Amino acid sequence: MADAVHEFELIERIVARLRDTARGDGVVLGPGDDAAVLEIPTGHQFVVSTDTLVADRHYPGGACADAIGYRSLAVATSDLAAMGATPAFATVSLTAENLTVNWAEHYAGGLATAARDFGITIVGGNIARGPESVTVTVHGHTPGGMAITRSGAKPGEVLYVTGSLGGAGLALADENLGEWSLVALKEDSPLKRYWMPRPRLELGIGLRGIASAAIDISDGLSSDLDHLCRASGVGCDVDLDAIPLYAGATALDAVAMGDDYELALAAPPDVRDTIADLAQRHGIPITPIATLRKDANPGAGWTQGGTLVEVRPGYRHF
Amino acid sequence: MADAVHEFELIERIVARLRDTARGDGVVLGPGDDAAVLEIPTGHQFVVSTDTLVADRHYPGGACADAIGYRSLAVATSDLAAMGATPAFATVSLTAENLTVNWAEHYAGGLATAARDFGITIVGGNIARGPESVTVTVHGHTPGGMAITRSGAKPGEVLYVTGSLGGAGLALADENLGEWSLVALKEDSPLKRYWMPRPRLELGIGLRGIASAAIDISDGLSSDLDHLCRASGVGCDVDLDAIPLYAGATALDAVAMGDDYELALAAPPDVRDTIADLAQRHGIPITPIATLRKDANPGAGWTQGGTLVEVRPGYRHF
Repeated sequence: MADAVHEFELIERIVARLRDTARGDGVVLGPGDDAAVLEIPTGHQFVVSTDTLVADRHYPGGACADAIGYRSLAVATSDLAAMGATPAFATVSLTAENLTVNWAEHYAGGLATAARDFGITIVGGNIARGPESVTVTVHGHTPGGMAITRSGAKPGEVLYVTGSLGGAGLALADENLGEWSLVALKEDSPLKRYWMPRPRLELGIGLRGIASAAIDISDGLSSDLDHLCRASGVGCDVDLDAIPLYAGATALDAVAMGDDYELALAAPPDVRDTIADLAQRHGIPITPIATLRKDANPGAGWTQGGTLVEVRPGYRHF
Repeated sequence: MADAVHEFELIERIVARLRDTARGDGVVLGPGDDAAVLEIPTGHQFVVSTDTLVADRHYPGGACADAIGYRSLAVATSDLAAMGATPAFATVSLTAENLTVNWAEHYAGGLATAARDFGITIVGGNIARGPESVTVTVHGHTPGGMAITRSGAKPGEVLYVTGSLGGAGLALADENLGEWSLVALKEDSPLKRYWMPRPRLELGIGLRGIASAAIDISDGLSSDLDHLCRASGVGCDVDLDAIPLYAGATALDAVAMGDDYELALAAPPDVRDTIADLAQRHGIPITPIATLRKDANPGAGWTQGGTLVEVRPGYRHF
């Protein structure tokens, strides 16, 4: 029975480390049973998304467990921000060859920090032996019919980007990227942007009923904007000089690199002031970068100084 | 852009292969956006569980993709059966080193077959490059407060097992286990039990308000019964001769091997007839195997012919 107890103990230690983030509003039954039982406000709809991070592919193998924990919840939660959903619950499936109690507790510690930052309860999960990877499924909710999709943008609308781009990408140049624990990360540094992305949750909720479409920038603006334009059946030319840049980033890199987890969104011209108010209230820039147009061949084009330019595609999963 | 389009195309081909199983009741928004938007009947609660299958650990590496597809949804859905939940939605995260269109379409075909069998809509997912594994998160629902947990069993109640045990375990002896496609599996064969387990969904729903506790037998009855007894704070002695066996299985193997995905459940003595009716209506035996007792040291003990015996623990995840 020694090994079975070990697995048991490991889960108990993880849940103990999650503390308050393993119980919360709407959680009728949390970790420890065959499934979790969850409630959302009457009249709301569930918003669900899943993301997998693979070691040596989506983050450096051997990276600090607490940083992996934070980042794994953040990247999944960013999809809720893009939908305008209120974050609520997550399940976490952890696979590792040698899952020690120490590693698992550090992972759970980083996860709990992120859960507190985002207002998410960890309601269940799975542990398995195998090549290291983490799959997080996040659950949020919106009032019925209020979720923001990729497909609602229309010609004549304005395209915006939140925050600044290119910061997280700069972190990839740090050859010690995998050696940073959360506590060592300096405020607003590229490393902090990489390991502790801040999904634009409050902005997303504020954009309900205002934005016509949104997508989170996970793979890079060049790819993700293309997804939004194709889903909405519109075109645009984005001037590289209009892109809000993280200090030290170049526009060509910033639009092709992912990991920033900002939002791209579209909205009619007549809500321009509302969007400016929202940006000010939350202290996050929302920058207009193009106007959408009818296009027989939907997608995003790029210009610089009035000339068409080629940009690299974003992160390739295959 | 060739690689980005490839990923796009791959997802499109998977969704195309899912056909009707990628849309269904309660799905406001299905695959293709940042997240899915879902609805369940008013007054119901969400029931959510996640499971990961790792190649070479939970199934033979190189196994037929359609068989992996079916099994990955089945094992996750079995947790919904144990909760008495009506199955509804699933997200699927697929990781593989060389995810070809052919492999992905076969995987999606098996997944779709299972989704149809269980009444589940595939509402989203993720694909990533990395060592082969599949994580499925399933979502079901029950009327408020009606979910069956592991912790509700009481002393004096009767412990039951559905169906028969040991069938799937026999398949592990087949050295060609990984070479079977779904269409080649013979009805009621050990191989079919292994690759196409049938979660006891109708029984689970029928047991709402009748069973005081339930758990699905995924790791083996010896482990899973121990979980139920500990969660409920009760003890029991199970006689090996009382275990309903698949033809050709021995009791000692059957209780220690997982993969059958039957249910263990507890219920008060006075609903014995109701349970017998339920078994008859669904054509699935529900066999009483022990009576629960107060126990200062909760857990399951084992006897044979009145003598205490040692059984092996179930599947060890670590």
